[in-house]
Amino acid sequence: MRPVPAGPYPGTVTFPVVGMVGGGQLARMTHEAGIPLGVRFKLLSDTAQDSAAQVVGDVVVGDHRDLETLRSFARGCDVITFDHEHVPTGHLRALEADGVPVRPGPDALVHAQDKGVMRERLDALGVPCPRHRIVRDPADVAAFAAEGAVGGGSAGSAGFPVVLKTVRGGYDGKGVWLVRDEAEAAVPFRAGVPVLAEEKVEFVRELAANVVRSPHGQAVAYPVVESIQVDGVCDTVIAPAPGLPAERAVRAQELALRIAEELDVVGHLAVELFETGDGRVLVNELAMRPHNSGHWTQDGAVTSQFANHVRAVLDLPLGDPRPRARWTVMANVLGGDYPDMYTAYLHCMARDPQLKIHMYGKDVKPGRKVGHVNTYGDDLADVRERAAHAAGYLRGTIQE
Amino acid sequence: MRPVPAGPYPGTVTFPVVGMVGGGQLARMTHEAGIPLGVRFKLLSDTAQDSAAQVVGDVVVGDHRDLETLRSFARGCDVITFDHEHVPTGHLRALEADGVPVRPGPDALVHAQDKGVMRERLDALGVPCPRHRIVRDPADVAAFAAEGAVGGGSAGSAGFPVVLKTVRGGYDGKGVWLVRDEAEAAVPFRAGVPVLAEEKVEFVRELAANVVRSPHGQAVAYPVVESIQVDGVCDTVIAPAPGLPAERAVRAQELALRIAEELDVVGHLAVELFETGDGRVLVNELAMRPHNSGHWTQDGAVTSQFANHVRAVLDLPLGDPRPRARWTVMANVLGGDYPDMYTAYLHCMARDPQLKIHMYGKDVKPGRKVGHVNTYGDDLADVRERAAHAAGYLRGTIQE
Repeated sequence: MRPVPAGPYPGTVTFPVVGMVGGGQLARMTHEAGIPLGVRFKLLSDTAQDSAAQVVGDVVVGDHRDLETLRSFARGCDVITFDHEHVPTGHLRALEADGVPVRPGPDALVHAQDKGVMRERLDALGVPCPRHRIVRDPADVAAFAAEGAVGGGSAGSAGFPVVLKTVRGGYDGKGVWLVRDEAEAAVPFRAGVPVLAEEKVEFVRELAANVVRSPHGQAVAYPVVESIQVDGVCDTVIAPAPGLPAERAVRAQELALRIAEELDVVGHLAVELFETGDGRVLVNELAMRPHNSGHWTQDGAVTSQFANHVRAVLDLPLGDPRPRARWTVMANVLGGDYPDMYTAYLHCMARDPQLKIHMYGKDVKPGRKVGHVNTYGDDLADVRERAAHAAGYLRGTIQE
Repeated sequence: MRPVPAGPYPGTVTFPVVGMVGGGQLARMTHEAGIPLGVRFKLLSDTAQDSAAQVVGDVVVGDHRDLETLRSFARGCDVITFDHEHVPTGHLRALEADGVPVRPGPDALVHAQDKGVMRERLDALGVPCPRHRIVRDPADVAAFAAEGAVGGGSAGSAGFPVVLKTVRGGYDGKGVWLVRDEAEAAVPFRAGVPVLAEEKVEFVRELAANVVRSPHGQAVAYPVVESIQVDGVCDTVIAPAPGLPAERAVRAQELALRIAEELDVVGHLAVELFETGDGRVLVNELAMRPHNSGHWTQDGAVTSQFANHVRAVLDLPLGDPRPRARWTVMANVLGGDYPDMYTAYLHCMARDPQLKIHMYGKDVKPGRKVGHVNTYGDDLADVRERAAHAAGYLRGTIQE
C-alpha cells in the first residue's frame, strides 16, 4: 500500500535525469529508448552537430576530458552513463566523490578501457582468453610469438602472425595490428603506448554474448549472436547465432553474466567472443555500453539493449530480453561513394515494407558507420538477403 | 542505376526537416519514431515544457494561431504536419501559398476541424453516419429529436436523448453533451458557436479503423480495433477487435481508405466508428494525425502509426501495418490522486518484464492522459489484465 502524499499537488517531480556522456549514435538510440520511460535525458557532446545532439533537447557542448566540464554537467543529473569509454578513470572517481552515481562505475569501466587490465582480471577469474602478454618492443613480440610456436614457421617468424593492440583507445579495428614478423611489429610501438600481444586465434566465427546488469544485481542475457566482421568492422549480426549448440550458447551467456557480476558492471555489457573449431569460446573484447552486436534488439527483442541500459543505470527492474522473431539480422550501413542515402529510401522501403532503418544523422564518409538496418522473419536466408540488400543499396554498392 | 555525384563530397544534405506544429504527446512520439529515419525534426510548441518540447532538439516556442510565427517556423521545414487540429485553415492556406507542403492539407484537415463540414461531406459520399443536422437553438434540438422519434418517449422528450457537439474545438468528451430534453439542450448554445445534433446511436461497441495515406496515393490499413471509452475518454484499445467478422472489418477498412482517398488525406487518418447490433458501422469522428486508437502499433505492429505518419508526410513508401502479436492491448494512464508514477515503475516492471510503458513527461492532474501502456501476447484475457493492472497501478487506483 503506497501512501498518498498530502498537501499541494506535487506533480511528477520524481522522474530522474540521465546524464549521457558522448554524442554518438549509441547516445542517440539510448535517448530514443528513454523517451517512452519519461526520464529526462541530458547530453554532454563534443559538438552540437553530433549524432545524438541533433535529437536531444538538453545538450551541453563540452569536452568530456575536462573535469570541470564533467562536474558542471553532472550537477543536473541523477546518474551518469556513457556513449564511449574515453572518460579518464580519475575523472569518474572525482564525480563519484562528488556523490554522483556513475554507471558503469570507474572500477568496472577500466576493464573496457584498458585491455591489459581486462586480460589480467579475466585470467584471475579463469575466463578463457587468447594467449596474451604485454610486450615491450618488437624483439619481445618475437619472443611472445616463439613461445606459442607449435612447429612450422620459417626462421624469424615462428609463432607469427601475432595480434598487437594498443591497450587503450582502439575501436573498430583501429589500434589493432596483425603482424607477420618482427619487422612489422615495430609499427604499434611508435605511438609510445603500452602494447598487448595476443595469439591469432584460428576461430570458426565470432560471437557476442550481451547481458545487462543493474546495481541491485538483477541481470538478463540476450540470445548469443553471430557477428560477421569485414575489414575489422562489424558488418552483419545474426540473432541467434545459427547452429550454435545450446550448451555452448548457455556457456557463453554464463560467462558474460559472470564477468558482469565479478566486475560489478552496471548497464549493458557486450562480450565479444571467438568460437573455435573444438567448441571453445574465448573472450576477445569487452564493451560496457550498448553495442553494435546488440542493435538487432531494437526490432528483434521484447526489450532493446538501449531500453535495458536505461533501466539498469536507473536501478529499475529489467525488461524481457527474449527475441520476438525466429531470426533477426542487423547489417551496418557504411558510407560509400554515393552520399545521398535519403533518396535510396524510396527503393529500399518500397522493396521491403518490413525493413527497419536506423540512421545516425552523420555525414557520409567512405567506410564510416552511418546507420544500420534490421530485418526479421522465419527464413534466415531471406532475412539475411533483405538486410544485406538494404545496407548495400544505402551504401551504393548495390544499384538495383 | 543512380548517378554518383562528382566533385567535392557533399555529405548527407538531402535528409529533410519535418516541421511539427504542436508540442503534445503525439509530437513527442512522432519525434521518437522519426529518429531512426534520420530526418530532422523541428517543433513549434506553446511552451518549452510541453511533452514533445522536452525531448526534441530543435524547438521554437510560439503560438500556432499567429500566422507570422507559423511562417517563420515553416521557413526551415521541408514539410509541415500537426500534433493537433487547431491551426486556422486560412493560415494553412497561406503557408501553402508560400510554397510549404502542408500535410494533411487544409482542404482535408477542415473535415477533422469542423464536424459540420465533415458530416456534410460524408453524406455526399454516402458514408454511413448517425442521423444529424446543424441546430439553431433548443427548440430546434427538440424538433430534431422528434424527427427521429420511433414511438415511445413522453411528451416533450420524443426522440431524446440527443447528442450535441460544438462543430469546432471539442476533444476527449469536451464539447460534447448528451441531452435528455429541450431544457438541457440550452447549455451548448451558450458558447455562441454552431452546434451539431446527432442521434444517440445504440451501439454495441466502438471501433476504430486507422489508415495512412501518402501524397502519391499509397495507403495502408491497420487492423480494426475495439476502443473502450470510460467517461468519454478512451480507456482501452484491443487490437484486433475481438470477434469482429472479417467482412465487417474489411468494410470498416475500406470505408477508412475511401475517406482518406476522397478527402485527399495525407498522413494518419483515424476513423472512429460505432458498431451496431445489426452489423452496421457508422462514422463517429475523424482525426487526421496519429491517434490514441493507434498507440498499440508502437509495440504491436511491424510499423507504428507514428513511423508511417512520418513516411507519409515525406511521401516515402509506407511500412507494413500488420500486427506482430496475436493480441495487443493499449491502456491509457490517467492522472489520479497518486502523483508519483515513477516509483510505481519498480512494481510494474518487476511484475511484468514484457510491459511497454509510454509516458508523456506531463505533470499529473486527475483525469489527464499522462501516458499509456502496451501489452501483447496470445491470451487476450492475460494481455488485458496486464495492461489494466499497469495502468491502474500507475494511476494509483490499484495498490498491489
